[in-house]
Amino acid sequence: MKLLRHGAPGAEKPGLLDADGHIRDLSAHVSDLAGRWLTPEGLAEIAALDVSSLPLVDGNPRLGACVAGTGKFICIGLNYSDHAAETGASVPSEPIIFMKATSAIVGPNDDIEIPRGSEKTDWEVELGVVIGKTAKYVSEAEALDHVAGYCVINDVSERAFQTERQGQWTKGKSCDTFGPTGPWLVTKDEVADPQNLGMWLTVNGHRYQDGSSRTMVYGVAHLVSYLSQFMSLQPGDIISTGTPPGVGLGQKPNVFLKAGDVIELGIEGLGTQRQTCRQG
Amino acid sequence: MKLLRHGAPGAEKPGLLDADGHIRDLSAHVSDLAGRWLTPEGLAEIAALDVSSLPLVDGNPRLGACVAGTGKFICIGLNYSDHAAETGASVPSEPIIFMKATSAIVGPNDDIEIPRGSEKTDWEVELGVVIGKTAKYVSEAEALDHVAGYCVINDVSERAFQTERQGQWTKGKSCDTFGPTGPWLVTKDEVADPQNLGMWLTVNGHRYQDGSSRTMVYGVAHLVSYLSQFMSLQPGDIISTGTPPGVGLGQKPNVFLKAGDVIELGIEGLGTQRQTCRQG
Repeated sequence: MKLLRHGAPGAEKPGLLDADGHIRDLSAHVSDLAGRWLTPEGLAEIAALDVSSLPLVDGNPRLGACVAGTGKFICIGLNYSDHAAETGASVPSEPIIFMKATSAIVGPNDDIEIPRGSEKTDWEVELGVVIGKTAKYVSEAEALDHVAGYCVINDVSERAFQTERQGQWTKGKSCDTFGPTGPWLVTKDEVADPQNLGMWLTVNGHRYQDGSSRTMVYGVAHLVSYLSQFMSLQPGDIISTGTPPGVGLGQKPNVFLKAGDVIELGIEGLGTQRQTCRQG
Repeated sequence: MKLLRHGAPGAEKPGLLDADGHIRDLSAHVSDLAGRWLTPEGLAEIAALDVSSLPLVDGNPRLGACVAGTGKFICIGLNYSDHAAETGASVPSEPIIFMKATSAIVGPNDDIEIPRGSEKTDWEVELGVVIGKTAKYVSEAEALDHVAGYCVINDVSERAFQTERQGQWTKGKSCDTFGPTGPWLVTKDEVADPQNLGMWLTVNGHRYQDGSSRTMVYGVAHLVSYLSQFMSLQPGDIISTGTPPGVGLGQKPNVFLKAGDVIELGIEGLGTQRQTCRQG
């Protein structure tokens, strides 16, 4: 299933994309795409609904983030060997993890706000993993049992805030609007191999990122298992698994975002996002 | 007011401490100490209640974290000059910020779980600041208008996970039970000067930390303003403002926590916590 949330910010309703690409409203059956609705049981209940009986949503509504109730937005740093190289870093000997503020989460096509004082706002197309079942000390073999599905994430990053303003990357990763998430939560049954998905990103039509999750250093199952050794993961938590090469910081000379720039990005089978930058 | 949450984990009810030190239940009036109930208007509504009419809570119930609905648990690193010195670091030229997972939050007297594989679990008594009103690009002069109150936090930290397991401190700060919070949210009208509060911590009766928020490098008003330049703060967000000297990593030789150890800590006017360590 391709699950989504449609409507105004803060008032999104759950929905799904039907076989014809139309949005069907789920709000008569599902409170929100959060918590128990993301568990295997919750997703099975949604899957058992008769799609043709669900109300069609007219027009082209705004989409919110495809998941709600996210308690943790965990990111993996330098998880593509060629991206590590372009930023001058070496591949880490185990996953680097950092947090993005959950208040950074926005819809897939919402504006990106360039923070006041920013000169180095950058982009990162990433494969997002949405947790569907609490995970604590789980093995790599059982890790995917705890995944509800996948989505596109733009891990927007302010490089000066991230690395030139005193330690810890969180500062450059957590600004409002820095976490477009969606358009859809694609349930894992529809993703044959999360480690073989094409992914791309353009700015003003120029293709900067053109990679594949195939070159991820630490794959999804490893990451879920690894993270669960350090903290429990709950339904709705998001893991953003790192970006392939082609970020602005990797260009010679560097290229950073400015008001008016249009970013488009997508991952094979998971849909696309489109954001316009504006000054915060 | 001294606001609190009493009851079993996940089923806490809001309450307050009356002038005689008894717990009064607020659940007939307040859904939870979260969101709108933490705003100036929400707190004014609670303050207007007739305390003597509120039901007394019998016995000595478990306390949960004193605030619910925390979207961000933001910590400030090396924010006491003498603590920076004991860990061999210099005082940062601007605040170091990192995130603790909100899933680490527990009640003030709940057990601390030593993670599997941990050999360096450590303690940090900290002044917690609870946000009561959304803050974005606020000045230092107006910053305290956005604060609901203060509480005690033990910023439990696994030093090897924090610094020896590949970059970013989050990994050593986010384990389940690593964020005891409370006993009370003390509203700011009861805290004459947050920059002049005695604070202490003992392990098995030995006093390791004995400091004052007076020696904080970046004070509460500065931190709220500073953070609001990088991300918006919402009601229920917690800022843990750093620890004075005396952590286990600062002892010669180092002292770390083991199963059975009992930690007690407190801050002047904000109450005390007591945790027993057990193996996770």
